[in-house]
Amino acid sequence: MSVVVVGSVAYDGIETPHGRVDRTLGGACTYISLASSYFAKTNIVAVVGDDFAKEDEEFLSSRGIDLEGLERVPGKSFFWSGVYSADMNDRTTLRTDLNVFAGFDPKLPASYRTAPYLILGNIQPALQRSVREQMNGLRLAGGDTMNYWIKDYRDELLGAIRTWDFLLINDSEARMLSGENNLKRAAAKIHDMGPHTLVIKRGEYGAILFHRDFHFMVPGYLLEEVFDPTGAGDCFAGGFIGYLAEQGYDLKNGHVGGKELSRAVIYGSVMGSFCCEKFGVDRFRTLTRAEIDARFNEFKAFTEF
Amino acid sequence: MSVVVVGSVAYDGIETPHGRVDRTLGGACTYISLASSYFAKTNIVAVVGDDFAKEDEEFLSSRGIDLEGLERVPGKSFFWSGVYSADMNDRTTLRTDLNVFAGFDPKLPASYRTAPYLILGNIQPALQRSVREQMNGLRLAGGDTMNYWIKDYRDELLGAIRTWDFLLINDSEARMLSGENNLKRAAAKIHDMGPHTLVIKRGEYGAILFHRDFHFMVPGYLLEEVFDPTGAGDCFAGGFIGYLAEQGYDLKNGHVGGKELSRAVIYGSVMGSFCCEKFGVDRFRTLTRAEIDARFNEFKAFTEF
Repeated sequence: MSVVVVGSVAYDGIETPHGRVDRTLGGACTYISLASSYFAKTNIVAVVGDDFAKEDEEFLSSRGIDLEGLERVPGKSFFWSGVYSADMNDRTTLRTDLNVFAGFDPKLPASYRTAPYLILGNIQPALQRSVREQMNGLRLAGGDTMNYWIKDYRDELLGAIRTWDFLLINDSEARMLSGENNLKRAAAKIHDMGPHTLVIKRGEYGAILFHRDFHFMVPGYLLEEVFDPTGAGDCFAGGFIGYLAEQGYDLKNGHVGGKELSRAVIYGSVMGSFCCEKFGVDRFRTLTRAEIDARFNEFKAFTEF
Repeated sequence: MSVVVVGSVAYDGIETPHGRVDRTLGGACTYISLASSYFAKTNIVAVVGDDFAKEDEEFLSSRGIDLEGLERVPGKSFFWSGVYSADMNDRTTLRTDLNVFAGFDPKLPASYRTAPYLILGNIQPALQRSVREQMNGLRLAGGDTMNYWIKDYRDELLGAIRTWDFLLINDSEARMLSGENNLKRAAAKIHDMGPHTLVIKRGEYGAILFHRDFHFMVPGYLLEEVFDPTGAGDCFAGGFIGYLAEQGYDLKNGHVGGKELSRAVIYGSVMGSFCCEKFGVDRFRTLTRAEIDARFNEFKAFTEF
């Protein structure tokens, strides 16, 4: 079943201890869509400038991603650049040029509006809300946010997530949003804000799923080498929603939630781990579904006792 | 089967955001022994001063711990005090008075020397080595160390761990000892130093076991409230060795290693999590084996998918 993904499609400049690229395809919507595309029909809603390269468009299409909702306007595409610390646990943003993304006003093509799955990348909460309201017949809707919106756009954000089924954020964002340092209590407060499912991403330490009274934890995959963590959190989100769409997950029609959601967290972790193995989106140029399922089985092997 | 535990028996002053105690029973050997005592016959090797309280001795005895190797000498017992940060991720040492511990020269009672399991708390590597050499017929020996010994007593430490089966350290210590930032590569280097089994403790993020080519990961237990993390790492060690002793774990006689060691890591995690629920050793005044096994099953429930 199909997934609508809303967010940024951008160009990134990235420097890690393993190398540097000055301009490569990036953006939350790009990473989420690429990861989701291994599981389900995926539809992009984003805006790019007239500098958006034909080869990048072709790459997304080659993964079966529907680009009808990719708006092209005069000007330059969103550009971000950053540099990672030696241990890759910190990164410094060097440049953020919103360019055409500053005027992003997501409008969904008619063919997208009845898709059952919606995932909202980290954008202005009011835009996230407007997209949600354009959809009919959703089985599952949710998304990401960040400290900036939590701190300075709190009311708008609370208005947006009130109707979400799931929220995917990192541990410091969960603490900031809830005002609770303890993650169990933070999750209970966030459930009360709307989302019955909260996924807390902890980077190299894995992830925690809180679904009503149930929780599930997974450690992070141990890579021999992390080349570039850019986009790993978004690939997690893409694997999560993609797997649920593939399963036809529907809380209202008998899916009790636990096991399917736990497996979605594993597929999210799998996609995040692959993302780090090459610069930018490069790992997705060769990655196969068979490799994904093999890594899912590796997670089973190193967590079972 | 029985376990010999060597290390400090001390008094601690502890301050956390939840309260403060000026003087309470502590020390690595104490915590390891208390945790181990739920699984196997446990024998202490340590030194205390003439201020060591009868009620503390009685508490250890009430857990079935053999105190024949607890040497009493004139003077004061080791005293440590520290204060935790608001989020409990950092602690500042206020005082370290070695007192009688400065002259600690562990001598094993004859009845201890043929015990099959030995765990060495964090003490001078030369002392760890001397204890190891006093034992006959060990099935499994190993222990803990810390940044101070890794940095300033490297050769002595390498001499000690060369004959160990397992090493239990935290992630920053593993990186320092191996000179590798990546934990998988760090583990390979540490295996080459002697221990075929490495357990990396990651505090609230859980633990990783590396056993030859196999690895196993477990997330940390989510507590509603962490009252006092003092001793949690040592309780992990006690649960780990205690469970293996209970199982009669013997790598040389057919135990292949994987599953028993993984379960030992879970029991270690269980004991570490209980330790944090009250100040000092207080949780062990009421804890039962049934509670321990129930939490083991909780680990299964929140990690299975």
